Amino acid sequence: MMRLMRLWAVAGCALLGAAAFGENEDVTRYARFEVDGAVAYGVVEGDEVRELEGDLFGEHQLTDRVHALEEVTLLVPCEPRQVFALAGNYASHIPGEEIPERFQRVQPFLKTIASLTAHEQDIVIPADASDDVHYEAELVIVIGREASNVALEDAMDYVFGVTAGNDVSERFWQNDPEHRDVQWWRAKGADTFSPYGPFIARGLDYDDLLLELRLNDEVKQSERTSGMVHDVASIVSYMSQYVTLFPGDLIYTGTPGTTGPMEHGDIVEIELEGVGVLRNPVVRESE
Amino acid sequence: MMRLMRLWAVAGCALLGAAAFGENEDVTRYARFEVDGAVAYGVVEGDEVRELEGDLFGEHQLTDRVHALEEVTLLVPCEPRQVFALAGNYASHIPGEEIPERFQRVQPFLKTIASLTAHEQDIVIPADASDDVHYEAELVIVIGREASNVALEDAMDYVFGVTAGNDVSERFWQNDPEHRDVQWWRAKGADTFSPYGPFIARGLDYDDLLLELRLNDEVKQSERTSGMVHDVASIVSYMSQYVTLFPGDLIYTGTPGTTGPMEHGDIVEIELEGVGVLRNPVVRESE
Repeated sequence: MMRLMRLWAVAGCALLGAAAFGENEDVTRYARFEVDGAVAYGVVEGDEVRELEGDLFGEHQLTDRVHALEEVTLLVPCEPRQVFALAGNYASHIPGEEIPERFQRVQPFLKTIASLTAHEQDIVIPADASDDVHYEAELVIVIGREASNVALEDAMDYVFGVTAGNDVSERFWQNDPEHRDVQWWRAKGADTFSPYGPFIARGLDYDDLLLELRLNDEVKQSERTSGMVHDVASIVSYMSQYVTLFPGDLIYTGTPGTTGPMEHGDIVEIELEGVGVLRNPVVRESE
Repeated sequence: MMRLMRLWAVAGCALLGAAAFGENEDVTRYARFEVDGAVAYGVVEGDEVRELEGDLFGEHQLTDRVHALEEVTLLVPCEPRQVFALAGNYASHIPGEEIPERFQRVQPFLKTIASLTAHEQDIVIPADASDDVHYEAELVIVIGREASNVALEDAMDYVFGVTAGNDVSERFWQNDPEHRDVQWWRAKGADTFSPYGPFIARGLDYDDLLLELRLNDEVKQSERTSGMVHDVASIVSYMSQYVTLFPGDLIYTGTPGTTGPMEHGDIVEIELEGVGVLRNPVVRESE
């Protein structure tokens, strides 16, 4: 009976949520947060969050513990073992008229665990970085089940949901013809270079969502995820042929259009339709 | 009193171990293993292993549970959150007479968690990989404490010990001028491409150990770690300026000399002085 009451309560709140966010009622948004010194996962219901018990990617139940979102501290919405991102996955981001052969296949790279950063946390530009540290607005896939050699037609069964991410990129370390690093370990993986959040959304059409980036309230990137060269299922299936993906793993799926530099004092907001707004202040580390 | 007896026992065994392995008595070798369905860390004492209780990288105590090494299954000796490796860290591996400017700084890249493989486990070459999948014998640093912005003179305080590793590398995906991937995600990070073990050794002079690789008993690589361009302290200090390193994290420190291909049916052994022999069979995945 208790369980039935909870299910009923959830259904009711999902409808309220739908009205508030313009999403259909099959969409669920998950948060990870700290409240009263404890860390919990929860389901967002309007301007509140209801705690979950159990494993977000396995068995879990809703509880009757509900908090106002403004009274919790949002944390990174999951804790991946591996973080990947894609190079060249929007035609609008690739120079030239045609998609070069190399980008006709999925082109992943790795980002560090140390670079993961939550909503509202600072993006810290290292003291010796260039002035060319760019934002990159991206849809981020969150893996839900261990995925190895997954067929294209089964790939969506391995996707838990999506969140918004900023694939922060130091262009000198990444690209400078004379001085670039052999690989992008710090250009893409320095501490705080991978903000993601604020929520994980499940049940959306991930391949057709509006992705927008605002730097100090000015729109800098705006494109639908339908502009991706490789869609969510293709990315997961292809990568799983070589590397096993684990529950909670992240895949940043590439950025559209033109990116630009961020400076000390800037505020970067990335809004992904159905997910919410990921907001991060930018600071430069002092020497 | 119980604690004193255990300490005494350990001291006695360490001396026996010293005689057996030609190492000095300050060297400790740690294993991670499965026995009777349970996973434990332990200290190697001759041909036995004594279980530890607690956190390998924090508070831990020796127990009176001792197993013959041949009766346990060795697992990967720790569980990192991040795995790095270095490009071009031996003069003998870099073409040309002089060290190019780019290799005068430490050149890390990332490897996947999915690529981690234990002693005696198969290295699996993906079905569609080229015939140019190379071995790379390496000393692997194991981080012991969270390391961020660590000064060179303090760096060794953050090193727990070292192990032996094979930075398996698919050269077509890595280097082929027309077909190489944008980054080395699968060339260096495909499942099973990062064997390491069998033990973590602590208390050695990490910057002067013999590193040798044998393919089917034929010596293919043999050089002392004193041939590294950047020593262990320099690597840890430099990397920690950009990326926070966590306890258990691995840094493969580059390979000496010339590498070559491995084939289905090969046996690869990497011996690192004071650590032991990491042995892996090679198999090619069927189409």
